[in-house]
Amino acid sequence: VGGSGAYDRLSLNTATTKRLTLVEALSAAQRAGLSHVGLWRDRVAEVGLRTAARLVAESGLTVTSLCRGGFLTAADPDGRQTALEDNRRAIEEAATLGTRELIMVVGGLVDGEKDLGAARERVADRIAELVPYAAEHDVRLVLEPLHPMYAADRAVLSTLEQGLDLATPFPIDTVGVVVDTFHVWWDPKLSEQIARAGREGRLASYQVCDFNLPIAADALLSRGMMGDGVIDFASIGRDITGAGYTGPVEVEIFNADIWAADPDEVIETMKRRWLDLILPAITSPVPVP
Amino acid sequence: VGGSGAYDRLSLNTATTKRLTLVEALSAAQRAGLSHVGLWRDRVAEVGLRTAARLVAESGLTVTSLCRGGFLTAADPDGRQTALEDNRRAIEEAATLGTRELIMVVGGLVDGEKDLGAARERVADRIAELVPYAAEHDVRLVLEPLHPMYAADRAVLSTLEQGLDLATPFPIDTVGVVVDTFHVWWDPKLSEQIARAGREGRLASYQVCDFNLPIAADALLSRGMMGDGVIDFASIGRDITGAGYTGPVEVEIFNADIWAADPDEVIETMKRRWLDLILPAITSPVPVP
Repeated sequence: VGGSGAYDRLSLNTATTKRLTLVEALSAAQRAGLSHVGLWRDRVAEVGLRTAARLVAESGLTVTSLCRGGFLTAADPDGRQTALEDNRRAIEEAATLGTRELIMVVGGLVDGEKDLGAARERVADRIAELVPYAAEHDVRLVLEPLHPMYAADRAVLSTLEQGLDLATPFPIDTVGVVVDTFHVWWDPKLSEQIARAGREGRLASYQVCDFNLPIAADALLSRGMMGDGVIDFASIGRDITGAGYTGPVEVEIFNADIWAADPDEVIETMKRRWLDLILPAITSPVPVP
Repeated sequence: VGGSGAYDRLSLNTATTKRLTLVEALSAAQRAGLSHVGLWRDRVAEVGLRTAARLVAESGLTVTSLCRGGFLTAADPDGRQTALEDNRRAIEEAATLGTRELIMVVGGLVDGEKDLGAARERVADRIAELVPYAAEHDVRLVLEPLHPMYAADRAVLSTLEQGLDLATPFPIDTVGVVVDTFHVWWDPKLSEQIARAGREGRLASYQVCDFNLPIAADALLSRGMMGDGVIDFASIGRDITGAGYTGPVEVEIFNADIWAADPDEVIETMKRRWLDLILPAITSPVPVP
């Protein structure tokens, strides 16, 4: 990520402009003068992988991550095979689209299950099974700790510490972690674990959005534009920079109001908030302790 | 907590029967053959502290905790004084009602504040200021880690580990922690930190209810009757027992449907679920590791 423009590290995760097709999202990012996008598999699938890769190449935009693999907690052999197959396809898609970073939402409890420990063990086993295939394709499985309010139904991986522990047995080029501010801002060990992620070479991605209150009726949609919620981006940004992260920063917002708004206006707002809230924290010199 | 009856350790936290006045709740608990109640300050205030203490004494029920003190994060001098005064009153009320355990919900960010670290420091400072008064009244400040979805608006204390760290400088008779299943069930370090709480003599209270999905539109009301949600009470109960906890177990449920139902029926359901889900886990022998 070279250059010195103010938006050089800003990446539009296309979940933020959810109703745009892939080609529309690429165009919107280009119009806004951005250099990067984070892509979602459903919009890639709509046009087909080869076409998507061609559209991306023609756009001149780089792909900072593919969202997402994961959902690895099936306990039955069929479910396990289906999950492994789907994740192998996701690995191939990431490589074809030109990104090393495949974001992994690990999955929740299966129907009726209450044993979090067992579900977590299955995640670790599935990751181990996927690592050789990811390495072969030069793709990194980027483990995403999700907010504990999703521990039952989306991700039994809830903290950065847990994610780093899960990653430890595997090569740093093949298993990393993402810090998504929405999911981890509350964690009393966040600063310490971001530093650890840097030290251990696992910090693969930084995603930002705010945590809005009250929590939305559909809890998945409580993500907000930076500045609209409670998150201290200055503090987290300093930690990310202190950990040595110099990569792209994705803005990824699930929010019914933002999805209903004009996508170009959403992107303009995103750029202003980027300049006000995100960029200063990732560019200011790290204070000497 | 002596005796050998099946309900000897079951305590009705009166939030579960929210619409009952103090005297109605005491009567309902007596009718149900219970020995313990956990009380809320608003229902005590309605009749006055002296009358409440007399009603409790006449009922023969023991009070297992008073809910709640806390809300300690005010940053201005007036707010700080108001919080300290209110918590001194809460300490006096606990002592007068005959319980040592004052549950503390520490409070969230103040308006416009985003610095979690600063809010957490103020909590630590206020606890330090309250400790002598609590000790003088033989009351324990019982720190309650709340689910991270409430980190901004109700409690900047989110994990048991953080609660135990916060308690460490203070005498074990004066500062403890409560394990409330709703708030901590998701925590990958739960088992380890419950064991630590026991080892360090800090495990002051065990409160149970379930974590319902989907999360209620008012997120505070997502607590459910044991068995209606995702929590593995067997596992957590074994950890609690393994940590040496032999005290009462409060059932504390905020839930609009449960509040709308007949309180006697709610208590009967609670007793059945207690026998099925809670009691076996806290009485079965701890397996030798």
